[in-house]
Amino acid sequence: MQSRKISFPLVLINFKTYRESSGKKGLELAKVAERIAKETGIEIGIAPQLTDLAFIASQVEAPVFSQHVDDVEPGSYTGHVTLEAIRDAGAIGTLVNHSERRVRADQVDTIVKRAKQLGLTIVVCTNTPEVTAAMAALSPDMVAIEPPELIGTGIPVSKAKPEVVTNSVELVKRVNPNVKVLCGAGITTGDDVAAAMRLGTVGVLLASGVVKAKDWEKAIRGLIEPLIKK
Amino acid sequence: MQSRKISFPLVLINFKTYRESSGKKGLELAKVAERIAKETGIEIGIAPQLTDLAFIASQVEAPVFSQHVDDVEPGSYTGHVTLEAIRDAGAIGTLVNHSERRVRADQVDTIVKRAKQLGLTIVVCTNTPEVTAAMAALSPDMVAIEPPELIGTGIPVSKAKPEVVTNSVELVKRVNPNVKVLCGAGITTGDDVAAAMRLGTVGVLLASGVVKAKDWEKAIRGLIEPLIKK
Amino acid sequence: MQSRKISFPLVLINFKTYRESSGKKGLELAKVAERIAKETGIEIGIAPQLTDLAFIASQVEAPVFSQHVDDVEPGSYTGHVTLEAIRDAGAIGTLVNHSERRVRADQVDTIVKRAKQLGLTIVVCTNTPEVTAAMAALSPDMVAIEPPELIGTGIPVSKAKPEVVTNSVELVKRVNPNVKVLCGAGITTGDDVAAAMRLGTVGVLLASGVVKAKDWEKAIRGLIEPLIKK
Amino acid sequence: MQSRKISFPLVLINFKTYRESSGKKGLELAKVAERIAKETGIEIGIAPQLTDLAFIASQVEAPVFSQHVDDVEPGSYTGHVTLEAIRDAGAIGTLVNHSERRVRADQVDTIVKRAKQLGLTIVVCTNTPEVTAAMAALSPDMVAIEPPELIGTGIPVSKAKPEVVTNSVELVKRVNPNVKVLCGAGITTGDDVAAAMRLGTVGVLLASGVVKAKDWEKAIRGLIEPLIKK
Repeated sequence: MQSRKISFPLVLINFKTYRESSGKKGLELAKVAERIAKETGIEIGIAPQLTDLAFIASQVEAPVFSQHVDDVEPGSYTGHVTLEAIRDAGAIGTLVNHSERRVRADQVDTIVKRAKQLGLTIVVCTNTPEVTAAMAALSPDMVAIEPPELIGTGIPVSKAKPEVVTNSVELVKRVNPNVKVLCGAGITTGDDVAAAMRLGTVGVLLASGVVKAKDWEKAIRGLIEPLIKK
Repeated sequence: MQSRKISFPLVLINFKTYRESSGKKGLELAKVAERIAKETGIEIGIAPQLTDLAFIASQVEAPVFSQHVDDVEPGSYTGHVTLEAIRDAGAIGTLVNHSERRVRADQVDTIVKRAKQLGLTIVVCTNTPEVTAAMAALSPDMVAIEPPELIGTGIPVSKAKPEVVTNSVELVKRVNPNVKVLCGAGITTGDDVAAAMRLGTVGVLLASGVVKAKDWEKAIRGLIEPLIKK
Repeated sequence: MQSRKISFPLVLINFKTYRESSGKKGLELAKVAERIAKETGIEIGIAPQLTDLAFIASQVEAPVFSQHVDDVEPGSYTGHVTLEAIRDAGAIGTLVNHSERRVRADQVDTIVKRAKQLGLTIVVCTNTPEVTAAMAALSPDMVAIEPPELIGTGIPVSKAKPEVVTNSVELVKRVNPNVKVLCGAGITTGDDVAAAMRLGTVGVLLASGVVKAKDWEKAIRGLIEPLIKK
Repeated sequence: MQSRKISFPLVLINFKTYRESSGKKGLELAKVAERIAKETGIEIGIAPQLTDLAFIASQVEAPVFSQHVDDVEPGSYTGHVTLEAIRDAGAIGTLVNHSERRVRADQVDTIVKRAKQLGLTIVVCTNTPEVTAAMAALSPDMVAIEPPELIGTGIPVSKAKPEVVTNSVELVKRVNPNVKVLCGAGITTGDDVAAAMRLGTVGVLLASGVVKAKDWEKAIRGLIEPLIKK
């Protein structure tokens, strides 16, 4: 599974540790995302809860990401997540350095280098244009710029702080143009997604906008609406 | 599943993040443990890799533990493990504070109190008799005393430092006699298990002694041999 | 200096990293505390900012504590605080495990054991009666119970949650009666100090109540007023 | 003091938490460094133990650095080091992200931005060329490349892994040419310093090579010998 190529634009749904996305409910959400992706042709990635990773990845064909990875190799570590475990679970990559689970730059460096050998996709979360540039210097596949103060607010960064996104895109181009930029924080609607794309990103990373929605299907369909070619 | 009662003596196998215990191999190891437990009537618990927790717990009846839990409630946390996720995954409890993944005492306190409400079993790992006493004061279900310098050595604490175990048992009795004591670090053979029991513990916590063994079945059968009533 | 004996009751002032307690201002505050202590005979300890420890300890005779210590021995560590450095700075001991700078139980264990060899006094901060009991099992000189939600509020724990203090005192007596209990969080006035003493503690740990006061002298004199024998 | 300009080449001595550099011995070492710097005109910076920062900075004119800083502002934090405390202590800046005390990229970003407002000099330690480039993207004054496996070995990075240094210098030029590069790890002799300069760095960061030397004066004079214009 891990050799699967991601296509863009990408909508990446972070399940976080919400009550609504745990265990069988998480599987259900994954199935909804998978169904809509198949039907529309839009790439929808999912990042289930850590404890559900193999459980969900073994039952869906959607591109599955871990929410976190540690910088350790397989071995005598307890309670850690290795890249190998992510691969063996059937996931294609992982988020790392989310604002709720930051790691250090030297750890991101180790993780990116090891992920390349394993054929896994790394998405590094960042908070400012400068940190985005710094993480791009480590050559992950993607960076996801998410001003922490907007996470979970429903106020999209693309509206509240568009310059954070455009400056990030600009700096990444200069430091390492191979790195793709996702836009995160506050994304809830198709308009937010469209705005993110106009600012030069290749997709969005979001969580509560989908997971906490009363109707998952409606929320996801709304998000990808502007991405569907008519 | 989470209301399942543990019986003693208990042999608890920590899968760690070994290459040998990841993904489908982890499931295979879980099935071996389950089969032997059913056949012999000896309680054998398993602690799979975090990413495999729901995957394995949904396919075996053995008592499944998480290797770690964070002290956060369900919500806006990325890359964390909540007690609720452990329960929803079908596990009955969790290790916490392993020497390879220590948490703070106030976090153990929060975790133990929340676990009681959720009906989950907490095993707190410790390193010295004093720390064992301290953790017992927080009233988890079990403590597992494991001198870190012996972990993975094959030198059983029950032989190398029996006084660490007996002092731990003694102090726990005084601080909180309801807390059960497991013996860890260096456990490989049935003799080690028998020695641990003679020192006043109710079972063992081990990892490499089983996971890294060439023949899992033989390793587990050797371990529980002295526990089988003839 | 480190062999100096603390007498009780003790008023221990944590300078934290307030702007008002940094550098020369910190020295000035230390001098005020020292002068009042000498005049009244009440023991007033001070815990200056880390960077000011030797600077202040070399210029006052008051009992000086570090705000934090790491569990490492002298050696190849950068940006750490060792017990030896605290002693060489002229301090008599240290706070550890403050709610703003928690460490793990095994680290407190190491620190307490090493401090005894070096003749240094350890005050372990705690948050709940259970954690207080746990820390008492590690045999530090003192524990300071401080419900974090009251820190800096001016609402004294002795009024808002007296049962947290009395339960802590009770549990410590049972686990290790040699450990003395300080009362922290929200202490501002002499009444708060008197209430803390009535609940069975041997003194108070406070910060903003003094450091942020417009008139340090007045604030300290107010605090110790009920402790002065008439 | 904090507005003092650093001149280059720079020899920066990290006192670490060695027994030999603590308290009065640390002051003595600082005085030796200061005397040689005055006599030869070579810039020699010192990074005393945290607890000695104000004590030493108040008694020498040498440029003093902290070994670490936290990313918090002055306020209700215990056991932290703020940039303001470093400034008030009389230091001109700080190391940050040493391999023995890593922080996260977003914290370095915050620290660099705040340090500019306060007129403090930031030296960010790094381990690989990629991480050096990443940290350069955050625009500190200097980066110090130190492969951790060589720290304390006496094997200079300039000999063992010159390509790590030259690649770092090259990447920094591309990402942010205003950032100066120091060379660390294994530096002991004047030859090591000369080699580091030839590889394109503006000076060295070292610790044991001086602190653990039997004769501090001889060690420092040896180091700076190739820097003295004849």
